[in-house]
Amino acid sequence: MGFFSKDIKSLDDLFIHMLREIYYAEEQIERTLPKMIGEATDPQLKAGFEKHLEQTRGHIDRVEQVFELHGVKAKAINCPAIDGILEEADEVSGDVGDKEVLDAALIASAQAVEHYEITRYGTLIAWARQLGRSDCANVLAKNLKEEQATDRKLTEIAENRINLLAA
Amino acid sequence: MGFFSKDIKSLDDLFIHMLREIYYAEEQIERTLPKMIGEATDPQLKAGFEKHLEQTRGHIDRVEQVFELHGVKAKAINCPAIDGILEEADEVSGDVGDKEVLDAALIASAQAVEHYEITRYGTLIAWARQLGRSDCANVLAKNLKEEQATDRKLTEIAENRINLLAA
Repeated sequence: MGFFSKDIKSLDDLFIHMLREIYYAEEQIERTLPKMIGEATDPQLKAGFEKHLEQTRGHIDRVEQVFELHGVKAKAINCPAIDGILEEADEVSGDVGDKEVLDAALIASAQAVEHYEITRYGTLIAWARQLGRSDCANVLAKNLKEEQATDRKLTEIAENRINLLAA
Repeated sequence: MGFFSKDIKSLDDLFIHMLREIYYAEEQIERTLPKMIGEATDPQLKAGFEKHLEQTRGHIDRVEQVFELHGVKAKAINCPAIDGILEEADEVSGDVGDKEVLDAALIASAQAVEHYEITRYGTLIAWARQLGRSDCANVLAKNLKEEQATDRKLTEIAENRINLLAA
């Protein structure tokens, strides 16, 4: 987007802009998860992150599908929000000196990522419907559903295992 | 937190670390909301942001209360996640050339902020309970409840008014 012009003139432009941001975000998450898998100690948490890495690849495919349905080229644009969330995750992990506490920090970071995706997919789905693109909305709703399920699963692992071990 | 030592050695340290981050985040949100109020066109959205600014001041007070209950000095530390979320909000707003579309973008940005706070308060409450600090958890739960209500209210304004006007 330009410095001299206001490129977003319609809800459709805004939808495409946010689709490009979430595309970037999903790609960054795909790049970051292997590090989180490596850092996690608890086998259930490690397995949860591994499953989410697989899902994230599926999410990228679905976002590409939405670009195609909507007739625009798949393109990622910078997304300072996910960069900040992942930077914060990395900083906290680097500061933790106990492996059980690190697992608790990793879950919190993963849930911050999930919540960012949940809000973005929620908005994208509402806008797609408003634009009469229920085809796009239906594909995006599959990603939203999986992100919400991952968030619930992480809460469960945190409350039943990780927080107990960390305390 | 230091560059040479891993300062977070317990769940209690992690709890305090995240309390300091959300303290910073709430302060940044308090600083940013007046700009969003100025940019919003829809009177219902403007009023919603104004109400949330009042609430945010209350959230800062409650976080200070939790610091006091927990016996640590209230101190904010950098929170790259909220900086990124607010930077993204500012970038998108600057790129929108239509006032109804700008309202839609502002709501999406505000919901990204809400979701960040929802995930952080959720985590802080779980950790406080694990640490036997239900007094702190109860205060934090008041903030969580208000953030969730604000998020629902924003969805309602978006779906019943703003998205229709923007499309």
